[in-house]
Amino acid sequence: MIKILLDAMGGDNAPAATCQGAVLALENDKELYLILTGRKAEIESELAKYKYDKTRLEIVDCPDVIGMNDIPTEAVKRKQSSLMAAYWMLKKEEDICALVTAGSTGATIVGGQLILGRIHGIKRPALCPAIPNNRGGVTLLCDCGANAECKPVMLCQFAILASAYAEAGFGIKEPKVGLLTNGTEEHKGDPLHQETYSYLSKMDGINFVGNVEGRDIMLSECDVVVADGFSGNIALKSIEGCGKLVLNTLKNELSAGLSSKIGYLFIRKAIKRMRAKLDFDKYGGALLLGLKKVVVKTHGSSKPSTVAASIANAASIYRGGLVQKVEKQLEGVDFNALIPEGT
Amino acid sequence: MIKILLDAMGGDNAPAATCQGAVLALENDKELYLILTGRKAEIESELAKYKYDKTRLEIVDCPDVIGMNDIPTEAVKRKQSSLMAAYWMLKKEEDICALVTAGSTGATIVGGQLILGRIHGIKRPALCPAIPNNRGGVTLLCDCGANAECKPVMLCQFAILASAYAEAGFGIKEPKVGLLTNGTEEHKGDPLHQETYSYLSKMDGINFVGNVEGRDIMLSECDVVVADGFSGNIALKSIEGCGKLVLNTLKNELSAGLSSKIGYLFIRKAIKRMRAKLDFDKYGGALLLGLKKVVVKTHGSSKPSTVAASIANAASIYRGGLVQKVEKQLEGVDFNALIPEGT
Repeated sequence: MIKILLDAMGGDNAPAATCQGAVLALENDKELYLILTGRKAEIESELAKYKYDKTRLEIVDCPDVIGMNDIPTEAVKRKQSSLMAAYWMLKKEEDICALVTAGSTGATIVGGQLILGRIHGIKRPALCPAIPNNRGGVTLLCDCGANAECKPVMLCQFAILASAYAEAGFGIKEPKVGLLTNGTEEHKGDPLHQETYSYLSKMDGINFVGNVEGRDIMLSECDVVVADGFSGNIALKSIEGCGKLVLNTLKNELSAGLSSKIGYLFIRKAIKRMRAKLDFDKYGGALLLGLKKVVVKTHGSSKPSTVAASIANAASIYRGGLVQKVEKQLEGVDFNALIPEGT
Repeated sequence: MIKILLDAMGGDNAPAATCQGAVLALENDKELYLILTGRKAEIESELAKYKYDKTRLEIVDCPDVIGMNDIPTEAVKRKQSSLMAAYWMLKKEEDICALVTAGSTGATIVGGQLILGRIHGIKRPALCPAIPNNRGGVTLLCDCGANAECKPVMLCQFAILASAYAEAGFGIKEPKVGLLTNGTEEHKGDPLHQETYSYLSKMDGINFVGNVEGRDIMLSECDVVVADGFSGNIALKSIEGCGKLVLNTLKNELSAGLSSKIGYLFIRKAIKRMRAKLDFDKYGGALLLGLKKVVVKTHGSSKPSTVAASIANAASIYRGGLVQKVEKQLEGVDFNALIPEGT
């Protein structure tokens, strides 16, 4: 049995989307046991719409909900909120293995650090989404916004965290790791990235392939792209914006004129296949890496299918032994010898 | 008569693409006079393939060509190279108004700074491409890689440079300016961007609308997005990579299966319209802003149509009075009062 917590009140469409997502997830994975935190009456009334295995779902009543505009460092104190109550349970109960939330990113990060805690030796947690690439697989972009300011040691640890995710979540052996900069040459970037390059080159257990550019996130052999949270976030959002504009433009042009409308009837399936290949939500949001247990932050506007995918991804990563892989990897690197203190 | 220099040897397809581009440009704009720098015999043999108005084209023989791997600070000394010879002419001859090159970006930037020189008061030149947006227009992203490390004063000046470009090149009055960060809230970003936010808010003559995210480059009301060259480059390349992956995936799916192939016959024109709307090369490469004259750096793999578009863009920006607009704008801002020395 794999026990996973779901913040049933997180996200714009909660609790409707989270409850339906939970039901979908239970259907797809018979080993799953879900604990939903949130306003019990609301959750029960949503769940009443579906048939599901009631022996594998429980609700923990939490009267409080953290909003998208609440200040994370304040929100973390609200123990009766669906998110923080979930974090406390995740910390205390050994048999619970993961948390999925579509709630506030800031509150999820702060709660993860202050309540659940980081893996011993890890300086900062990092957000890591799986981005579709030209090989029909995914590239893990780490960090994507948890840390606007980074030091080289953090970027080196992001390489470890995301490599462990690639292995635990996607079965990729010796994942290829690139460092996101403004050019592929060794000397590219600012001092932060130049220094990080030199440390990554010397680090054991990481398959570092050098500097990569923004285009290499989707179009290269890299399995992992390491980024400071500022530029990682810009890369991710730029990709989202471009994808949306291209697909909207295609949609508009396909509905303009009779010929296109007829053609569309023939290519509907091709468009569907294309959308499936480029679907960002296939793996349900970003992992919050570096914490003592698996935490998946899916986006606020998640649909039921995205919530279900996030739960399935959390289970798969737990089964793959993410945290143990990170710990093992950390044992093999002497950060104090590799990187001068404070860097 | 508008006199423009073309580095005929710059780019992967030179001098074939540059010569054909020159012929196209002359055809489209009867006021244009082109000076091609490069190996005269090679250029003449390319030009011999076309009919064009020989009274509006001259060749300046330059035996030397700067390669993509040459070190820019060394390359700038090679006065007989097609690029540096062009810069010297641009500097010395008052009636020449612009330079177009598909050569090395680094050499173009260094040549611009050391030979042509910056507009009085401008700290650093910046690369600024025009990116298609969801309003059917373009968003100017400045800087995109000329400056991997920036100070607030530079970012504030990028706002002035790109605003002047928006007005001179695209007739946009009071262009809306956003600052590229990892979130839209005022406090987002690292100290560089937080400080820049406060200065841009107080700066006269700039229509600053606040922080913007990567997705806002293509999907917002912004005409100008100001970025440090490191993250601006990452945004641009991420967009390029995503656009390429989406279009390739679409192409592959449309050629898979009989139904899609039939459908494609009906939607060919729609796809063509879509490609035209999303075409990055419509305006031919990036402007190198902040120099005493108009300099357009188009990408190394430019086709003849891109070279022609770059020449047309250079002429249009010159006609729009880019440099004068920048100078006027600079007069209105007391940078020493706004931003402490060294910041």
